[in-house]
Amino acid sequence: MPSLSKQTFVSPEDVVAEKIVVRKDSPRGVHFRRAGPREKVYFKSEEVRACVVTCGGLCPGINTVIREIVCGLNYMYGVDDILGIEGGYRGFYSKNTSQLTPKVVNDIHKRGGTFLRTSRGGHDTQKIVDNIQDRGINQVYIIGGDGTQKGAALIYQEVEKRGLQVAVAGIPKTIDNDIAVIDKSFGFDTAVEEAQRAINAAHVEVESVENGVGVVKLMGRYSGFIAMFATLASRDVDCCLIPESPFYLEGKGGLFEFVEQRLKENGHVVIVLAEGAGQEYVAQSMHTVDGRDASGNRLLLDVGLWLSQQIKDHFTKVQKMAINMKYIDPTYMIRAIPSNASDNIYCTLLAQSAVHGAMAGYTGFTVGPVNSRHAYIPISRVTETQNIVKLTDRMWARLLASTNQPSFLNSDEVMLGKVDRAIIEQINNRKITSI
Amino acid sequence: MPSLSKQTFVSPEDVVAEKIVVRKDSPRGVHFRRAGPREKVYFKSEEVRACVVTCGGLCPGINTVIREIVCGLNYMYGVDDILGIEGGYRGFYSKNTSQLTPKVVNDIHKRGGTFLRTSRGGHDTQKIVDNIQDRGINQVYIIGGDGTQKGAALIYQEVEKRGLQVAVAGIPKTIDNDIAVIDKSFGFDTAVEEAQRAINAAHVEVESVENGVGVVKLMGRYSGFIAMFATLASRDVDCCLIPESPFYLEGKGGLFEFVEQRLKENGHVVIVLAEGAGQEYVAQSMHTVDGRDASGNRLLLDVGLWLSQQIKDHFTKVQKMAINMKYIDPTYMIRAIPSNASDNIYCTLLAQSAVHGAMAGYTGFTVGPVNSRHAYIPISRVTETQNIVKLTDRMWARLLASTNQPSFLNSDEVMLGKVDRAIIEQINNRKITSI
Amino acid sequence: MPSLSKQTFVSPEDVVAEKIVVRKDSPRGVHFRRAGPREKVYFKSEEVRACVVTCGGLCPGINTVIREIVCGLNYMYGVDDILGIEGGYRGFYSKNTSQLTPKVVNDIHKRGGTFLRTSRGGHDTQKIVDNIQDRGINQVYIIGGDGTQKGAALIYQEVEKRGLQVAVAGIPKTIDNDIAVIDKSFGFDTAVEEAQRAINAAHVEVESVENGVGVVKLMGRYSGFIAMFATLASRDVDCCLIPESPFYLEGKGGLFEFVEQRLKENGHVVIVLAEGAGQEYVAQSMHTVDGRDASGNRLLLDVGLWLSQQIKDHFTKVQKMAINMKYIDPTYMIRAIPSNASDNIYCTLLAQSAVHGAMAGYTGFTVGPVNSRHAYIPISRVTETQNIVKLTDRMWARLLASTNQPSFLNSDEVMLGKVDRAIIEQINNRKITSI
Amino acid sequence: MPSLSKQTFVSPEDVVAEKIVVRKDSPRGVHFRRAGPREKVYFKSEEVRACVVTCGGLCPGINTVIREIVCGLNYMYGVDDILGIEGGYRGFYSKNTSQLTPKVVNDIHKRGGTFLRTSRGGHDTQKIVDNIQDRGINQVYIIGGDGTQKGAALIYQEVEKRGLQVAVAGIPKTIDNDIAVIDKSFGFDTAVEEAQRAINAAHVEVESVENGVGVVKLMGRYSGFIAMFATLASRDVDCCLIPESPFYLEGKGGLFEFVEQRLKENGHVVIVLAEGAGQEYVAQSMHTVDGRDASGNRLLLDVGLWLSQQIKDHFTKVQKMAINMKYIDPTYMIRAIPSNASDNIYCTLLAQSAVHGAMAGYTGFTVGPVNSRHAYIPISRVTETQNIVKLTDRMWARLLASTNQPSFLNSDEVMLGKVDRAIIEQINNRKITSI
Repeated sequence: MPSLSKQTFVSPEDVVAEKIVVRKDSPRGVHFRRAGPREKVYFKSEEVRACVVTCGGLCPGINTVIREIVCGLNYMYGVDDILGIEGGYRGFYSKNTSQLTPKVVNDIHKRGGTFLRTSRGGHDTQKIVDNIQDRGINQVYIIGGDGTQKGAALIYQEVEKRGLQVAVAGIPKTIDNDIAVIDKSFGFDTAVEEAQRAINAAHVEVESVENGVGVVKLMGRYSGFIAMFATLASRDVDCCLIPESPFYLEGKGGLFEFVEQRLKENGHVVIVLAEGAGQEYVAQSMHTVDGRDASGNRLLLDVGLWLSQQIKDHFTKVQKMAINMKYIDPTYMIRAIPSNASDNIYCTLLAQSAVHGAMAGYTGFTVGPVNSRHAYIPISRVTETQNIVKLTDRMWARLLASTNQPSFLNSDEVMLGKVDRAIIEQINNRKITSI
Repeated sequence: MPSLSKQTFVSPEDVVAEKIVVRKDSPRGVHFRRAGPREKVYFKSEEVRACVVTCGGLCPGINTVIREIVCGLNYMYGVDDILGIEGGYRGFYSKNTSQLTPKVVNDIHKRGGTFLRTSRGGHDTQKIVDNIQDRGINQVYIIGGDGTQKGAALIYQEVEKRGLQVAVAGIPKTIDNDIAVIDKSFGFDTAVEEAQRAINAAHVEVESVENGVGVVKLMGRYSGFIAMFATLASRDVDCCLIPESPFYLEGKGGLFEFVEQRLKENGHVVIVLAEGAGQEYVAQSMHTVDGRDASGNRLLLDVGLWLSQQIKDHFTKVQKMAINMKYIDPTYMIRAIPSNASDNIYCTLLAQSAVHGAMAGYTGFTVGPVNSRHAYIPISRVTETQNIVKLTDRMWARLLASTNQPSFLNSDEVMLGKVDRAIIEQINNRKITSI
Repeated sequence: MPSLSKQTFVSPEDVVAEKIVVRKDSPRGVHFRRAGPREKVYFKSEEVRACVVTCGGLCPGINTVIREIVCGLNYMYGVDDILGIEGGYRGFYSKNTSQLTPKVVNDIHKRGGTFLRTSRGGHDTQKIVDNIQDRGINQVYIIGGDGTQKGAALIYQEVEKRGLQVAVAGIPKTIDNDIAVIDKSFGFDTAVEEAQRAINAAHVEVESVENGVGVVKLMGRYSGFIAMFATLASRDVDCCLIPESPFYLEGKGGLFEFVEQRLKENGHVVIVLAEGAGQEYVAQSMHTVDGRDASGNRLLLDVGLWLSQQIKDHFTKVQKMAINMKYIDPTYMIRAIPSNASDNIYCTLLAQSAVHGAMAGYTGFTVGPVNSRHAYIPISRVTETQNIVKLTDRMWARLLASTNQPSFLNSDEVMLGKVDRAIIEQINNRKITSI
Repeated sequence: MPSLSKQTFVSPEDVVAEKIVVRKDSPRGVHFRRAGPREKVYFKSEEVRACVVTCGGLCPGINTVIREIVCGLNYMYGVDDILGIEGGYRGFYSKNTSQLTPKVVNDIHKRGGTFLRTSRGGHDTQKIVDNIQDRGINQVYIIGGDGTQKGAALIYQEVEKRGLQVAVAGIPKTIDNDIAVIDKSFGFDTAVEEAQRAINAAHVEVESVENGVGVVKLMGRYSGFIAMFATLASRDVDCCLIPESPFYLEGKGGLFEFVEQRLKENGHVVIVLAEGAGQEYVAQSMHTVDGRDASGNRLLLDVGLWLSQQIKDHFTKVQKMAINMKYIDPTYMIRAIPSNASDNIYCTLLAQSAVHGAMAGYTGFTVGPVNSRHAYIPISRVTETQNIVKLTDRMWARLLASTNQPSFLNSDEVMLGKVDRAIIEQINNRKITSI
């Protein structure tokens, strides 16, 4: 038990509240078990045979999670027998495993990508659990996104059904930050940081020419978190388009009008765009070009290319105004970098939580911070819904306040503005209040 | 009221709980008002005359806070009259002010340092409040550390005493992260990130030679947060010394023994050290060299130089073993960089919260996230205690688990280790548990 | 004459040889005037009215050149009257000028882009020289690429024709490094450095999956210098395709065969591609899709997208082999960054050389290092030919040696290999030789 | 002979001129053999047993040189048997060797430091050559600075004396760039780039306070190249002090006067200082504190600490003026980083030149660019003198022109300034001249 004696144990009774912004009379709500080392450990060190697998797309920090699962098991619990599953789920049944030791993984957190390689799909519950059983594995650490965690839930259920004493732990991975319940997913912070380079480049390009229009496409298929945070961090963005907030191009209050206005005011405009934004338009375009060859269509699926072309066509043909379009897609350059310090620490916490949970004999759980405290969450809770940017949320309000972009909503809100003003004037005789 | 209509208002009834790790029967505890825009605003836009002042040492992100106070006041509330106080508190009464507009501060967040310049001391409550009164200022934004916030509290009290309708808002600044109540202070994340460069350099240097000993001194006069987080993020550190955890050099369980052991095992060792660690030893050394000239003494106050010399002397003279000492002090190189994306967003939130609070007519408050929700906290609450690393906290336990460094405690814990093992074996017949 | 007295003057007789790798009996060849301050200066400080204009695409370092022309004129020669021409050549006759002072340009070298903004085209010799004459400008500094320098030559000729005492100095700018005579163009070093990010990302992506194929498109319309140097600097590239070296896709010795072989050997392959490489194929593809709408065609002009699609189609359809294609186009992210230290110094030297030359009364020249010594070169010399990668040059040989990529030449070279071997064995009885 | 057939061979008759700035009638001067692959190779691939050793301090790029020697020997000449000598010269006789293959060294260029580790001293010619003989080594690659190259010359002489057919090749390494004959040493470019961080930090710190004085100490024991180039690249430096240019502190034209003047003008001043600058003063100080303990003295040897203290004392005590001193020593943080793209290419060229030279049967040579063409230079030529900054050189003149710092010379130059002016006015009737 190398260093566990130095740990402060977490009581199995400790829980973390899902909701913390409350009113005086609000009910207690859902709570999760707090993550951390338990005084009572289920597995004997020498009996553990763990395995680690990574699935899906790249994300900064995967290697740190792998490293810290291995080092955590070894340094904190004296576990020696840890297998690396190669190339995603299908690696369970179609590839050799490798032995993971602290020495082997010592420097991998300084590199991007995944040391264990990855793939999409390949999930075959029966084959995987057969393989777990045959190899005598009793701890399974699964790093992956939404689809991967659904697969993990199936493995957990099958393991239960067969009555195996195997702990199944999921570490949720998605650069998009769209996982429910938990505060944020690992790699997200690094991604937002790295996205600044692309936004800066777009800004410099458009500032240096006449009527410069910069379009930067960022990750986010169903949620606009990266686009939103990257916009807030940069302060050089005029407009941020995300899947959660529909927009339209033409007419009053549309994007073209806004772009034209900013070009008149500043001579340039920068648009940040989540890859999932405006997919309904791209799909429409696809339809109209039907009959064309596959390659052409595939290219048009890219909303960034599509929007750049739309803006270019509008200003060239309709407005007879020459614009300088600069389109940047930094996706791979963001995904492939190593995690920053903040994500390194975060990945360490996730990995250690997972290890403590599995060693304590918990199974069927994922790990993650809930209101900044690490907790164990049933896998099904994180896969049943997806986290999206709520348009009524404070953070989106902050973004709108900072970009002053159109809301792409109908015109009732003009009224609202008037009402606000009225109220403000009314209360002007209030006395200033100490907190 | 330019864009406030787009905001979702926060109800004055919303509160944030200070404690969130609770047990089923634990009491409700302290709550703070949630930060954010209020439906009812106290000040009329055209009547606001705000000012911003920065005090104390540098920290990444000060310029972002300045920028976002100015832009927040202007974009969200239509405020035009914002004064910059130059060079800290003494700027109120001894320097000219400058007019701050969104245009003037537009790019300052891309630079380190403080656009308004800073100084230490110079606090004279009477003169400052006279000046506030004479200039007709009714919103005062004060960015600074512990001492500065105490000064802000005095200004607030004097303002109250004189019955002025002036909102006093503090934005707590300390790169050390030692401010009570709030989750973390701005610039901290950037500092931990930048500290990696120094740790990497030390690691590369000592790996390339025989018996290499790297010592990296980081910020942290009374608290070891930067050292602790930088150590956790790096994974290349053998030992982390912080003010909160006393250590000793000689004898069994001491630092020299540990260094010797790591040199034997790996050929090198990297020590990260908060500037406030081991000050009792440095003070002692100072005493013994008493009588020497000022310059000599001042140099010895640097615990990094002191420790490097102690280790060098011990191994050279006592152990007759040649070591390669590499001492790095990256302090200024860390303090002076611009804030990263994460801190940029954080600074924006702090600034906007402060602006919303002051505009709503609150006074005598500081802003900051409590359990990841931004709140208004009475200034006195953040100055009455200082945040330090709790040795019983999970994060310090994680660090110890990752470095496996000596605890520098007495030897009772060996027993403890044994007890742990016994319990673990007892419970081995438990069934694995679903979360 | 502020600080010129500190300078070591360059004699007007000093020349720089164009060729320096010589044999004992080779002729002396072409020489250029050495750049630098002259003891005899043509212009009086107070009579100088200089102007600076930037044309064409972005390139790291433009702002440093602008800054150093302004500071050089002011600090070294006491010149106060310097005009900035806005937005390229057309700025001479269609826009207001701005006054450039050391204070105004003090920090611009820390930003990418061009402080004076830029445009393509807009060259109207008569209007420009009219404007020069009307405004009383007597020194014209023109920063731009091949087309821009041709324009500068026309301005110079018109100025001569009209008998104006106006010095016309060109500072050659092209990120592609394809300017004849001079050693390299400014910004090139920074571009090669920044290109590493994209290559690293591609490498990490393809290493993490099965059959990963990374394609990175870099700048270089007619010359492959950036692609070649970025490949040499990285060591992670399997194949580098440049405009100067034709290649083919199908059949023995073709690119598909090479990609397949590397996939079999290593599981992944990284291709770096200059934007001008294989344009003949892209043009062909364009032809076959003739009749389609403009937008479709324009997309296909991008050789990177084209090659990615070709490889994908070949392996999916012909080889029935699933590959993971990762295409990265970092062009704008490279062009828009500030220059690195090396380019900063280089830009300073170019600017100061131009200033010394104009002040000495030279005209119709460009500046640049010839064999690492800065020289004045007649504008026509740098525009009459373009610098390209010579396939017989040592640097290309080094690249081939490092990537071991196919030469895409016919099969005679196999013979050559045999001959080499024969000779080597013959001389094995030579004695080793001191240098 | 894997890929040599693709190379363009260099004729043994090709030479590189040492001098290229010439006048029409100047003599031909010294020439060196041009580096590169020879058609006739001395060694058979299968008979080569090469070894590589690294000595002295760290410098960016050592790992790239090691990697490219190994890959060059293997890819270009089919050599399989390459030994790594561990930990510098003493590794020849006191340590085990390791086998170096392309696979082993594949990624080392992405890390700082030296993969083979290093040490100072330990040179014992007899033991080393015995060992070379005993192990059957016939190619020795020695990477190191001045002292190391002197050692290489001794090994070469002993090898000659014993009549061994062993090629001895030196690759000169010094971050200071003080090696004679060659254009620059590897790692220098990276060092100048990285030094910008420290200068930026100093500049931000002093700009943010009143009377801020930043002192940055850079490498350069006997030559000020890094300080000079870092100053030129930054444009934020007020004064650059190097070993080659003596300076004085007090009185008219002294440093204190200059600092005071800049503080009055700008409120801050940044001084860059090579570690070897002003050593005569530091030595004097040491003398006066004689009798103190070793540790005190050692600290005072640091000219950066010494100068900071002198300035502080002068302004505090003599001038009664409070200053804010910020001293930064980034030495280890610069030395330990990986080489940038430019140095990576440069290291590749050095390594490949060395390999071609040794394979061609040359011995007793070092490699390096002479006027930007790579050449073979007798070891003795690079060790007999050291390269220093010539105060009459154009580059130092450029620096003085850019900082406008005092020359610390006597006052005759004031006269000179006047003379310049006179001449300039005289020639004002010259006509402008085409190049």
